[in-house]
Amino acid sequence: MLLEKIEQVNDIKKIEKSDWNALAQEIRDFLIQKISVTGGHLGANLGAVELTMALHLALNLPEDKIIWDVGHQSYTHKLLTGRKDGFDNLRQFHGMSGFPKRKESNCDPFDTGHSSTSISAGLGLVKARDLLGENRVIVSVIGDGSLTGGMAYEALNNAAELETNFIIVLNDNNMSISQNVGGMSKYLNNIRTASGYLDLKEGIYNALMGTRGGTGVVAKIRRAKSSFKQLVIPGMLYEDMGITYLGPVDGHDIPGMVRVIGDARRVKGPVLVHVLTQKGKGYAPAERHPARFHGAEPFDIATGLPSHPRTVANYTDVFSTVMCKLGARDEKVVAITAAMPDGTGLKRFRNMYPDRFFDVGIAEEHAVTFAAGLAAGGLKPIVAIYSSFLQRAYDQILHDVCLQNLPVIFAIDRAGLVGSDGETHQGIFDFSYLSCIPNMHICAPKNKWELSDMLKFALRLSAPIAIRYPRGEAYAGLKEFRAPIELGRAEWIYRESEIALFAVGSMVKTAEGVRQKLKELGYQVSLVNARFVKPIDEEAVLGACEDHDLIVSLEENVMSGGFGEKVLDCLERNFKKNLYLNISLPDAYVEHGNVEQLKKELGIDADGIVASVLECLKRGEAKN
Amino acid sequence: MLLEKIEQVNDIKKIEKSDWNALAQEIRDFLIQKISVTGGHLGANLGAVELTMALHLALNLPEDKIIWDVGHQSYTHKLLTGRKDGFDNLRQFHGMSGFPKRKESNCDPFDTGHSSTSISAGLGLVKARDLLGENRVIVSVIGDGSLTGGMAYEALNNAAELETNFIIVLNDNNMSISQNVGGMSKYLNNIRTASGYLDLKEGIYNALMGTRGGTGVVAKIRRAKSSFKQLVIPGMLYEDMGITYLGPVDGHDIPGMVRVIGDARRVKGPVLVHVLTQKGKGYAPAERHPARFHGAEPFDIATGLPSHPRTVANYTDVFSTVMCKLGARDEKVVAITAAMPDGTGLKRFRNMYPDRFFDVGIAEEHAVTFAAGLAAGGLKPIVAIYSSFLQRAYDQILHDVCLQNLPVIFAIDRAGLVGSDGETHQGIFDFSYLSCIPNMHICAPKNKWELSDMLKFALRLSAPIAIRYPRGEAYAGLKEFRAPIELGRAEWIYRESEIALFAVGSMVKTAEGVRQKLKELGYQVSLVNARFVKPIDEEAVLGACEDHDLIVSLEENVMSGGFGEKVLDCLERNFKKNLYLNISLPDAYVEHGNVEQLKKELGIDADGIVASVLECLKRGEAKN
Repeated sequence: MLLEKIEQVNDIKKIEKSDWNALAQEIRDFLIQKISVTGGHLGANLGAVELTMALHLALNLPEDKIIWDVGHQSYTHKLLTGRKDGFDNLRQFHGMSGFPKRKESNCDPFDTGHSSTSISAGLGLVKARDLLGENRVIVSVIGDGSLTGGMAYEALNNAAELETNFIIVLNDNNMSISQNVGGMSKYLNNIRTASGYLDLKEGIYNALMGTRGGTGVVAKIRRAKSSFKQLVIPGMLYEDMGITYLGPVDGHDIPGMVRVIGDARRVKGPVLVHVLTQKGKGYAPAERHPARFHGAEPFDIATGLPSHPRTVANYTDVFSTVMCKLGARDEKVVAITAAMPDGTGLKRFRNMYPDRFFDVGIAEEHAVTFAAGLAAGGLKPIVAIYSSFLQRAYDQILHDVCLQNLPVIFAIDRAGLVGSDGETHQGIFDFSYLSCIPNMHICAPKNKWELSDMLKFALRLSAPIAIRYPRGEAYAGLKEFRAPIELGRAEWIYRESEIALFAVGSMVKTAEGVRQKLKELGYQVSLVNARFVKPIDEEAVLGACEDHDLIVSLEENVMSGGFGEKVLDCLERNFKKNLYLNISLPDAYVEHGNVEQLKKELGIDADGIVASVLECLKRGEAKN
Repeated sequence: MLLEKIEQVNDIKKIEKSDWNALAQEIRDFLIQKISVTGGHLGANLGAVELTMALHLALNLPEDKIIWDVGHQSYTHKLLTGRKDGFDNLRQFHGMSGFPKRKESNCDPFDTGHSSTSISAGLGLVKARDLLGENRVIVSVIGDGSLTGGMAYEALNNAAELETNFIIVLNDNNMSISQNVGGMSKYLNNIRTASGYLDLKEGIYNALMGTRGGTGVVAKIRRAKSSFKQLVIPGMLYEDMGITYLGPVDGHDIPGMVRVIGDARRVKGPVLVHVLTQKGKGYAPAERHPARFHGAEPFDIATGLPSHPRTVANYTDVFSTVMCKLGARDEKVVAITAAMPDGTGLKRFRNMYPDRFFDVGIAEEHAVTFAAGLAAGGLKPIVAIYSSFLQRAYDQILHDVCLQNLPVIFAIDRAGLVGSDGETHQGIFDFSYLSCIPNMHICAPKNKWELSDMLKFALRLSAPIAIRYPRGEAYAGLKEFRAPIELGRAEWIYRESEIALFAVGSMVKTAEGVRQKLKELGYQVSLVNARFVKPIDEEAVLGACEDHDLIVSLEENVMSGGFGEKVLDCLERNFKKNLYLNISLPDAYVEHGNVEQLKKELGIDADGIVASVLECLKRGEAKN
């Protein structure tokens, strides 16, 4: 086993060149085996095995620095930097992260998680190197999908200006999580498929022929150019921006890549190395189903099928189904995703209404303002973006959608704790960052039927509205409670006295458990499904004040700017003296791990909340 | 006077072609005269006179739609669409906005204000047109500066994919607000200066010569390409992305532009029309000093000098001076701006320490993650961005800076009400959107000395911190109160009893007035300079509860997620029964107008606050 020789960084340099391919195979087998047990980002990692090996062979870590864009393709890097044992607890609570983490290794110079940050971060490290008089190589590795994110382009533009050595490796697998889209994608595809020199030469001759005759310089150039359009000069787009382009090179040819990285080190100024890889390389099911093996659940290696097939619908499934119905009912309904047709559940809508479906690439900013434009043009856009990724479009929500009060519906999936992806992906800020935006409405469903009802309500509202729902299984309890959705109206589930639980979205289910336990302790407990976070149902809150001692708000969001602060503000403005308890997430990033485990750890599971309630009652009594 | 004939949209079509240039001159004179009185964006508007006329001549408004990127260049458009009289109250309270507004005219199809949104919004209108079976021309007009913003590129990428007619006019004046930067800027400059056809032909021959000999296809292409690099094929970069390029055309030649817009209408798919204009065209002082005449204060037409020269330093001046000192003291201090070296006051730092100054273009996302990279690399970056523009980098602050707890200092200028730029530019959300981010610290100075002290404190902190300060005159009162800055510690200014005013930043000055008035009414009033919004000084708040009946928080920010909610939470958690009053901005966008007038209107001037305090006391007594 060659892999046994890899115990720490740079051990790979002891492996004979003739054994490189064998080592790559062992790494692949290792990753497949480990990820089949823990789950994880298989496809991207299988595609980047040789590229990572080549970088480790050509560079001197940790002195030199590699920034992995998104970071989910860093498993081989982790393996080669002494973290082999971590794979048994990959993405588990207190286990190894699925993303680069500075706290995990000095070979991880910058944490990543969201797309398209690596060139910006790398350029920062580059300029710090220059100003501190250091002499190291900085490499940012970015996928062609991530390159559709605008900030990558902002960074390329700036890198061209700064004119210092900086290696950008474009890991081009012609894929985002799903199929790649957009003009740049076509451009890269042209490079992939062009047969190079022959086309170049022929294209030039055609261009020259085309320039004969005609009048005026502009006309001549235009004619020449239309001939040139047939011609692909690899990387000319980057060269035009001021970035040296090397490639394309085979991303599974280790010696070839070691050579080109060596070339890149000698270039003055920024250089883009275009590497062609295959997502899922070497594992047939992942090659065939790249989207499914992007972020895989544990699977059976022989068949590629999930070890624990899902039997219960999740909220994404519900959203998917409702969207198809809404699309049939109203031709003005259009759907937008930022490179997530599978993850958001919009694939079925796309298949049924391809004209009304827009995958804009990993481009949340554009997605939201594009939706604003669609709404201004008379359509009813529904933008489906995960909670943590919607942070990317904050100004667009505030400045382009809400300022004009345009009827854009935000379907916010993966809101609340998301689990194994960890810190970068927890959707625990959306109530806060959306609440302070004028004209915005925010709601969250208690169960799967309510998600459907809220989407229909949102279409009737004709104003900006966000519906947020969590990752995972859709709650199928409380089916009998289905009062019509009204703006800013909560729903009383159980009306008793003493303690009133105002729970939002996923916390309604939790609150049922809290209520049971408190009742067993002898308390009278009301449960209110808050439904709306903006505006909150002040009448319900004030009504509860009449016959409850303690008002409790429960949300899966940080406290600052969240639901609870609105409840408290309502109590205060109305001079209510009831005890109040805010159950929300602490002011901290939440690491990866099983969601149930995380909730327990953070004290927002039923037991933790009951303990908080009892303590609050005790302290309140002592004070009175 | 030709201008007299322009009373409503399309009146321009009645003007003889031979009079077009004369009309342009009249428009120029009109704009210079009006803006010299009211202030406004002079340079951009003078540059776009002929372009706007050409668009109005070639299109059929309001059926066809023009989206103005940023929108500050839309004055001629307003003039040609029946809003001539509005210029007397331009940017005044209840007067005409300096930006396109849907509520002002049906010729304004989409509100703009921030940079780089127009292609996204335009593309939305385009797809709405297609799906609704309409037949109109949609034009987005974007400057070369705005094109450095990443979302413009996301939108171009998507436009190329959608392949429907859409005209993008690139208004290229080789400027952002200040000098333009970046690789794209160089590229456009090459097009500007290339002599076109001749270079094209020569470049091709050189390329062919260069390909002789050598081995291997890649090597040949590489050699050919390095010859090609000398060659500029106009617009090939856009053509490579899948966007038809027409140009460059002279942006002051009206018939030429009318012709090319006609051509563009006939193109299938997206087309970019490259128009070369001169910022400030036709007014010598604006041509010479484009940055000063970007957003001009009222000025004397003959000399171009301000009518009311500023005699008092503003916070930007203070920041500018302190930055130069900090730069001298610590070589690790670096400064980053997103195309605002003048507006943020970093120009002097740039002149003194050019190596440690980075203007990244209109690219707030990249600016922040680049700063995170600089910090991770061992430097001490200070990012100066206006409050409303920082919204663009929300995810980067949360995901790239704060998650890694990197010591990036955010110098947030134009925080609070900004006045005449209005809704899109009010900096009234920053406390809210920053407060919910873990590891973030937030403070605001009461006066000019405190801004200096806070910057020095921030450098010692070694963690993410935001310092926010308002537009305009730096407060020079309370000089005698200069207790050292300590993390999360407030400063008692006056300690009495009954009413405690906890004021943040600009509101400390206002609170002095409030205190005076309340004292005249016989109340004992304490004044606390809160200094920190995160973390707040809970000890000071709880201390005040001991000997004050009413606690008042005062901030120039919306309520949700702001300073006051933290104060209230502190009271509640500690079972304090004191009366509490939250003075903050309403949950609404705030229009343009004089800041003092706006504060009065919103009830956050001294008189308004006194009235609220008295009412709160009255209601509180009634309830007790």
